[in-house]
Amino acid sequence: MADKAQIQDAIKTQGEVVRKLKSEKASKEQIDEEVAKLLQLKAQLGGDEGKHAFVLKTAKGTRDYNPKQMAIREKVFNIIISCFKRHGAETIDTPVFELKETLTGKYGEDSKLIYDLKDQGGELLSLRYDLTVPFARYLAMNKITNIKRYHIAKVYRRDNPAMTRGRYREFYQCDFDIAGQYDAMIPDAECLKIVYEILSELELGDFRIKVNDRRILDGMFAVCGVPDEKFRTICSTVDKLDKMAWEDVKKEMVNEKGLSEEIADRIGEYVSMQGGKDLAERLLQDPKLSQSKQACAGLTDMKQLFSYLELFQVTDKVVFDLSLARGLDYYTGVIYEAVLSQTVPAPVPTPTEQNGADEAGVSVGSVAGGGRYDGLVGMFDPKGRKVPCVGVSIGIERIFSIMEQKAELSSEKVRTTETQVLVASAQKNLLEERLKLTTELWNAGIKAEVLYKKNPKLLSQLQHCEETGIPLVAILGEQELKDGVVKLRNVASREEVDVPRADLVDEVKKRTL
Amino acid sequence: MADKAQIQDAIKTQGEVVRKLKSEKASKEQIDEEVAKLLQLKAQLGGDEGKHAFVLKTAKGTRDYNPKQMAIREKVFNIIISCFKRHGAETIDTPVFELKETLTGKYGEDSKLIYDLKDQGGELLSLRYDLTVPFARYLAMNKITNIKRYHIAKVYRRDNPAMTRGRYREFYQCDFDIAGQYDAMIPDAECLKIVYEILSELELGDFRIKVNDRRILDGMFAVCGVPDEKFRTICSTVDKLDKMAWEDVKKEMVNEKGLSEEIADRIGEYVSMQGGKDLAERLLQDPKLSQSKQACAGLTDMKQLFSYLELFQVTDKVVFDLSLARGLDYYTGVIYEAVLSQTVPAPVPTPTEQNGADEAGVSVGSVAGGGRYDGLVGMFDPKGRKVPCVGVSIGIERIFSIMEQKAELSSEKVRTTETQVLVASAQKNLLEERLKLTTELWNAGIKAEVLYKKNPKLLSQLQHCEETGIPLVAILGEQELKDGVVKLRNVASREEVDVPRADLVDEVKKRTL
Repeated sequence: MADKAQIQDAIKTQGEVVRKLKSEKASKEQIDEEVAKLLQLKAQLGGDEGKHAFVLKTAKGTRDYNPKQMAIREKVFNIIISCFKRHGAETIDTPVFELKETLTGKYGEDSKLIYDLKDQGGELLSLRYDLTVPFARYLAMNKITNIKRYHIAKVYRRDNPAMTRGRYREFYQCDFDIAGQYDAMIPDAECLKIVYEILSELELGDFRIKVNDRRILDGMFAVCGVPDEKFRTICSTVDKLDKMAWEDVKKEMVNEKGLSEEIADRIGEYVSMQGGKDLAERLLQDPKLSQSKQACAGLTDMKQLFSYLELFQVTDKVVFDLSLARGLDYYTGVIYEAVLSQTVPAPVPTPTEQNGADEAGVSVGSVAGGGRYDGLVGMFDPKGRKVPCVGVSIGIERIFSIMEQKAELSSEKVRTTETQVLVASAQKNLLEERLKLTTELWNAGIKAEVLYKKNPKLLSQLQHCEETGIPLVAILGEQELKDGVVKLRNVASREEVDVPRADLVDEVKKRTL
Repeated sequence: MADKAQIQDAIKTQGEVVRKLKSEKASKEQIDEEVAKLLQLKAQLGGDEGKHAFVLKTAKGTRDYNPKQMAIREKVFNIIISCFKRHGAETIDTPVFELKETLTGKYGEDSKLIYDLKDQGGELLSLRYDLTVPFARYLAMNKITNIKRYHIAKVYRRDNPAMTRGRYREFYQCDFDIAGQYDAMIPDAECLKIVYEILSELELGDFRIKVNDRRILDGMFAVCGVPDEKFRTICSTVDKLDKMAWEDVKKEMVNEKGLSEEIADRIGEYVSMQGGKDLAERLLQDPKLSQSKQACAGLTDMKQLFSYLELFQVTDKVVFDLSLARGLDYYTGVIYEAVLSQTVPAPVPTPTEQNGADEAGVSVGSVAGGGRYDGLVGMFDPKGRKVPCVGVSIGIERIFSIMEQKAELSSEKVRTTETQVLVASAQKNLLEERLKLTTELWNAGIKAEVLYKKNPKLLSQLQHCEETGIPLVAILGEQELKDGVVKLRNVASREEVDVPRADLVDEVKKRTL
C-alpha cells in the first residue's frame, strides 16, 4: 500500500481532474468515472478522512431492480416461461462463471468483452458471455444428445458504453434450444413459432422476424467473388446494414476490407432482397447463386422452413432477408432476428438508473435472435462428436424498458405486493389481538399484513393500503372482539361490513379472487 | 506466454505429480485439481496436442442443475416465495458484482473468501458474498427508510473445500428483510414466524430455531471478565459449540485466545443454558449478568420476542440458546439460526456432481439464519443515517439435497416438463397434419409436443410419453382426419376414445386439471 502522503498527493491531482472536467462540461459518465477514482483514493486513506467516502453506486453498466421493476419483470418472465413450457421444454441452470478456456475461441472478436475473474489461486475463471456456450459444455460433459431446454439467467459483457449506450453489462437472456438429430427445419420452425408467440403475448406492437442462413451468405460471398478468408469479416460488415445505409456499408467493404467495387456491388444486389418462400424458390433458379452447393442447401432448407411456418401460422411476420448476418462465430445454418417496428420514447431515468439507458428516443431494434449451431457441442466433446442444435435467445432488457414505459403511461398502478388484507385497529392496546388475527390469516394461507407499531393511527393504516394497493382492511375493536366479529372494509369503496370471525378467511378469499 | 519447450517441461512435471497422487490414493478432489492444472498446461500448447484437451467440468465448487434438480428447485422456491408474499414482501434484485469497496470491512475474517474480478481497466469489482450488504447499499443509495423485501439470488464464497466439504462456492440465498424504525421485536418475531412456516411447509422433518442476542453475548463476556478487544474472537470460538465439544472450545479459548481458565469456565456456565421466556426472566435476575446494561436490554427484548412468538404460535420450535453466536460482524441485536434434527444419509453423487457434496452421512445442520443489523445501512449513508434492519436468510442448497434424496427414495417420478398432450400418428406422411393440430393446441394454450420426425413410429411416440410423463396422446390417422375426430389416448390406462376435433381442447383441459 502506498503511504499516506502519496495518497494525499494523488487525491489533490485527481480533484483537479474532476474540477477541470466539470468546468469543461464533460459527459456525466466521464465525470462519474473520475469522481469514483477520487473517492476510491479517499477511501484508501481510511480513518475519518476516508469515512463515508464510499462511492454509493452499482458497478458501471449494471443496475438494481426496484420492486416496481421486479413486478414488471415477473410478468414478462411468466409470459416467456409459460410459452417455453407450452412447447414442452425442461430447464437447466449453469454456474455464473466457467473455466476461462471453456469460453475461449467461441466468440470471435467479441472475446475481448469477456469478464475475467482475478487469479486468486486455483482455476482461471470468466463470467459467462451467453447461455449457449455453457449449454454446449453441459451437453458434452453429460453426453446428452437430445434435449429441449430453456434457461433464463444473466450474462456479462464488458461492452463499451460509449459505443452502445442504453445497453447493460449485466443483462438477462431467455434461451430456448433444441438439441438432437431430427428431420430438417422442424425444430428450427418451432423456435420461430416461439418468438412469434412471445412477442405477440407481450403486446409490444408490430414486429418482424428476419431469417437467413449462414450457408446462403457464404454461397453468396463465394459467387460474388469474395475470397474465402474474408467471409467472416465481410459478414460482420453486412451485419451493420440494420444500422447503416448501403452506401456506408459498401464504403467499409471497399476501403477497410479491401473488396473491389464490383464485388461489393454484386453483394449489394443480393443483400437488398427480401421475401418469403417465393424468394427462396427464385434464388434456387438464380444462375449465379445456384452454382454454390452451400447456397442451394440453404435455400432448399429455407423453402422447407417456410412451409412449416405456414402450418404454424406465423408467416405474416417472417421475412427471408439476405442482409441478416449476425455476429457470432458458431452459427452453421439458419439464423434469425426479431425486431420491433415501433420507436420507443426515451425513458425517464429513475434515481437508481444513473448508468446507461439515458439516451434520446431510439428504435428498440433487435429483441430476439438465434440460429442453428451444429458444431459447438463437438468443440467440447473429447471425440468431437457433434450434437446438432438450434435455439433462440430473447433479449429481455429492451422488453423490460418498453413494459416499464407502458406502465408509466398507464393509469393502472403497478402493485409490488400481493397482500389481500391489512389487519388494523382504530383503538389503542390491541397489538396482541391484531397479531393473533394476522396469525389466523397466515395459517389459513391468506396474504396479510399488520403494521409493526403498538398503537398505529387508523389513518396511517388506511394510507398504507392506499399506497400499496391492499384491497381489504380487517378492523378490530373492543366491540368487535366482544361480538366475535371483524369489521371488513373495502378500501376503494369505503364500505364496511361486520363478518363473523369464523367466516373471515372465506370472506377474504371470496373478495380477492 | 511461455515458450513451447517450457510448457512441455511443465506438462511432464505435472504429469508426474498426478501419477504420484494417484499411486498414493490421494483424495479425488486433490487429484482432480492437479489433473485440471495438467490439462490447462496442455491446452496452452494449442494445435493438435491441445485440441480437445479441454477440462470438461464446471469451476471448482460449482455445479450445473439438471432438469430434475430444477423441477425440485422450482418446487422449493415456490413454497418460499409464497411464504414471503403471504407476509406482504416486495422483491428487488441487485447486480452479481459490486464495487470492491462496497464489500470491504463488512465480513470480518471472511473477507478473504470474496471473489474479485480481474482488473481489466475501470472499476475494481467483487462478486457479492451475501445479499445483505448489497441490500444495505441499495437502501442507502436510494434513501429508502422503510421496506419489507425478499431477494433470491446466488452468492459467491471462495470457501476452502477441504474445511467445509459438501458446501458450494456458488449457492443460493433466499433473504427476507424488514427495514424501518418500528416498535421493538415485532418485525424480529415475524422473521422467525417465516422460518417456522417455510421449514414446516417443506416437510424436512423436525427442526429447532435457536435465538440469542449480540448484546446478551457481549454483556456475558463483560461480566465474565473477557477484555473488550477479545469479544469478537471469543464470539467466533463460542460459535463453534455446534460442531465441537465444550472441552475443545474451552481449550481454544485458553490456549489460542489467551483467556484464563476461570474466565473460560464462567463463560461455559452461561453458554450451556437453553430455555424460553422463563430463561430470559431468570437471567434478568442473575446477580452478575444483570449488572450489564447491554445484557439487560437484550434480555428484556428476548422476553418481549417470546411473547410475540406465542401469539404467532411458534414457540414449540424456538429455543433461547446462549451458545448461539454467528460469525458475521454486522449483527447488533437478536440473532437466530434454524437447524434440522434429522441426520441425512450421504447423497449418491450424480455424474454432474464431481465437486464437493460427496461426503458420508452428516447432520444437515443450519438451514437458515439471520438477525438484526441496525448499523449496516449507516455505513453506506454519506451522513451515517441509520436504518434499523432485521432479516433472515434461508440456505437453500442443503434443503435441495434433502429434497433430491426424498425424490430419489419416493416411487413418484419427478416430471421435468408440464406437457399435457403429445400429438402423434401411427401412419406415414402425416407430419403436416400433426403440426397443424399441434398449432391448434398451442394457440389454445395447451402444452403440447410433437416429435421432430417425418415418420416416427407409434411406439417411440408412446415411449416418449412414458419417459417424460405426458398423460395424453392425440392420435391422428387417415380415418380420424376423414371423420373430423382425434383419437385421445390415456397413456397410463391405455384407454382410447374418439373426440370431435372441435372438442379436443376442452377435453384435454378437463383431463389434465
